[in-house]
Amino acid sequence: MRATMIYGPGDIRVEDRDYPAIKMPGDAVVKVAAACVCGSDLWPYRGVKALSEPSAIGHEFVGVVESVGADVTGLGVGDFVIAPFVDSCGQCPPCQNGVTVACEHIAGWGDTDEHGFFVEGAQGQAVRVPQAEATLVKVPGVTEPDDALTASLLTLSDVMATGHHAAVSANVGPGRSVVVVGDGAVGLCGVLAAKRLGATRIIAMSRHEDRAALAVQLGATDVVAERGDLGVAQVRELLGGVLADSVLECVGTKESMEQALHSTRPGGSLGFVGVPTGGAEIPLRYLFDSNIHVAGGMASARTYIPELLKDVLAGTINPGLVFDSVMALEQAPEAYRAMDERRAIKVLLRP
Amino acid sequence: MRATMIYGPGDIRVEDRDYPAIKMPGDAVVKVAAACVCGSDLWPYRGVKALSEPSAIGHEFVGVVESVGADVTGLGVGDFVIAPFVDSCGQCPPCQNGVTVACEHIAGWGDTDEHGFFVEGAQGQAVRVPQAEATLVKVPGVTEPDDALTASLLTLSDVMATGHHAAVSANVGPGRSVVVVGDGAVGLCGVLAAKRLGATRIIAMSRHEDRAALAVQLGATDVVAERGDLGVAQVRELLGGVLADSVLECVGTKESMEQALHSTRPGGSLGFVGVPTGGAEIPLRYLFDSNIHVAGGMASARTYIPELLKDVLAGTINPGLVFDSVMALEQAPEAYRAMDERRAIKVLLRP
Repeated sequence: MRATMIYGPGDIRVEDRDYPAIKMPGDAVVKVAAACVCGSDLWPYRGVKALSEPSAIGHEFVGVVESVGADVTGLGVGDFVIAPFVDSCGQCPPCQNGVTVACEHIAGWGDTDEHGFFVEGAQGQAVRVPQAEATLVKVPGVTEPDDALTASLLTLSDVMATGHHAAVSANVGPGRSVVVVGDGAVGLCGVLAAKRLGATRIIAMSRHEDRAALAVQLGATDVVAERGDLGVAQVRELLGGVLADSVLECVGTKESMEQALHSTRPGGSLGFVGVPTGGAEIPLRYLFDSNIHVAGGMASARTYIPELLKDVLAGTINPGLVFDSVMALEQAPEAYRAMDERRAIKVLLRP
Repeated sequence: MRATMIYGPGDIRVEDRDYPAIKMPGDAVVKVAAACVCGSDLWPYRGVKALSEPSAIGHEFVGVVESVGADVTGLGVGDFVIAPFVDSCGQCPPCQNGVTVACEHIAGWGDTDEHGFFVEGAQGQAVRVPQAEATLVKVPGVTEPDDALTASLLTLSDVMATGHHAAVSANVGPGRSVVVVGDGAVGLCGVLAAKRLGATRIIAMSRHEDRAALAVQLGATDVVAERGDLGVAQVRELLGGVLADSVLECVGTKESMEQALHSTRPGGSLGFVGVPTGGAEIPLRYLFDSNIHVAGGMASARTYIPELLKDVLAGTINPGLVFDSVMALEQAPEAYRAMDERRAIKVLLRP
């Protein structure tokens, strides 16, 4: 089969690889219908995260079950499924608490599972899924989704689940005012998640006209282009002299975290999902003085997918709009370039 | 009148001071029935917090209204009242959000109010209370509480409200497992608050037999004397191999914050009320990886007093047990010594 490998910074190749096979009774093999490139895939691409050897890459996919191991009874051949961005067992205490990203038997795509077997990356034609029954979510009544539905289902694998996690972590709810820091795919999904959870005032912080327009389409009521103190002043003015009840931090840099903290009212909530880089921090004394709640981190997509899926299937949310580009799998190198150069918000890959 | 002043590290004096008088129409003058010494009063006493001049001290008191300004209609002469550890207006956006410690017109005891008038410290015979109607909470049906009730009412001024804030910030609720780091008056109140909120398993971390015994009396189901990794291992063992759902940090040091963080399960909640000192921090990456929620800071005692007061008056909670010593106001210097030397958990002062 054909699959995407990263050899080093800027070096993405689509290659012939062995077709996956069932290794354990709990496995399934899924033929990938759509995958995509994530902002976090750009870290090794940009050399920010070192690679010791050429690696399979990609962690977001939807597809069709092709085969299952002997222990898999809840999934059948032909089921259309969504894969969260990590797999999980569903049984250990963290999974039982809904924190599947802390699963004691976790495995990542493009890595090895706890039994030492290779797990394919998502940006390829097929993937072996360990702990398949606990990991995969079947899309009921759907076997061949159209392009728009496929795109929305694919966002549940990561970006929409992550935007939702930011909103939940920031205690977004009816009547709360919301600021979203970050206009990438996750930030845009955060806007949509905030609207879905009932926020009536949603301020998207964006300096890019196309992304700001998409934010408005997804539910933003206001756009603030300014950053730093000026940005905070704009938020305060828009909200009638006060700061936001809930702020979603969807970038992860020192600057974005400061922007988020300083946009949150005393006693408000900050949900952060941007992977902390470049000295991002939360000064404890600031939290103490402001009574701001902080929560976030990696989203347990597996936990969130069922409720979000209902709304996608009902047509009440359309997170697939964050894909502004679709390419064939063979074009993966160009997909990475387009995202690296910010010519694309998010690229969907069709194997 | 007689009132307590701090002149410098270790130098507490009870002196003659002017009796307070109404300065603004919203003021009340309260004759203090009981005050007490707070752990935070020990900072200037120990020289940790510098003093530029001799200052009035004390921020926790209950007492009887002696006179009111022309605008005060909800309080009358003779009312027995509880004063939160700061005053607040009740009208500004933070107050409306229940975050009275972020009041835009806040004043502290022993400081000056926004009009520039001196506000007496609580460890004295009488105090002028600015913004009296919004600040003070009347104890209904009580004019001369007995010693036990007086002690419990006095804890609502700060320590019980603060312990409750830690528990609320840590999302304590029915069925949640709880660890309390810190066995001072606030930690002990945190134990009681956790029990009141329905926690069934409450682990108090304490190395002092008397405090541990009191923690058990207040609702702790287990006591862990070990600290560091050993303490975490003990918590994990007591909870059947997992960490706590909710952890209350009631100290504020680097060590106690680490103890608290490392005792919290993935996706659990840490409520912190210990004033951060000595390099206490929350590493953002740790939060990201663990999905731990963090909230806390200064408690908005004014917001919490009404609900806690109901339970004190009903006799279902007895937070006054944290006072293990009662002294006359004139003994304030000895009260500070006893707390500084940890001979007393908390000293109640009777003017």
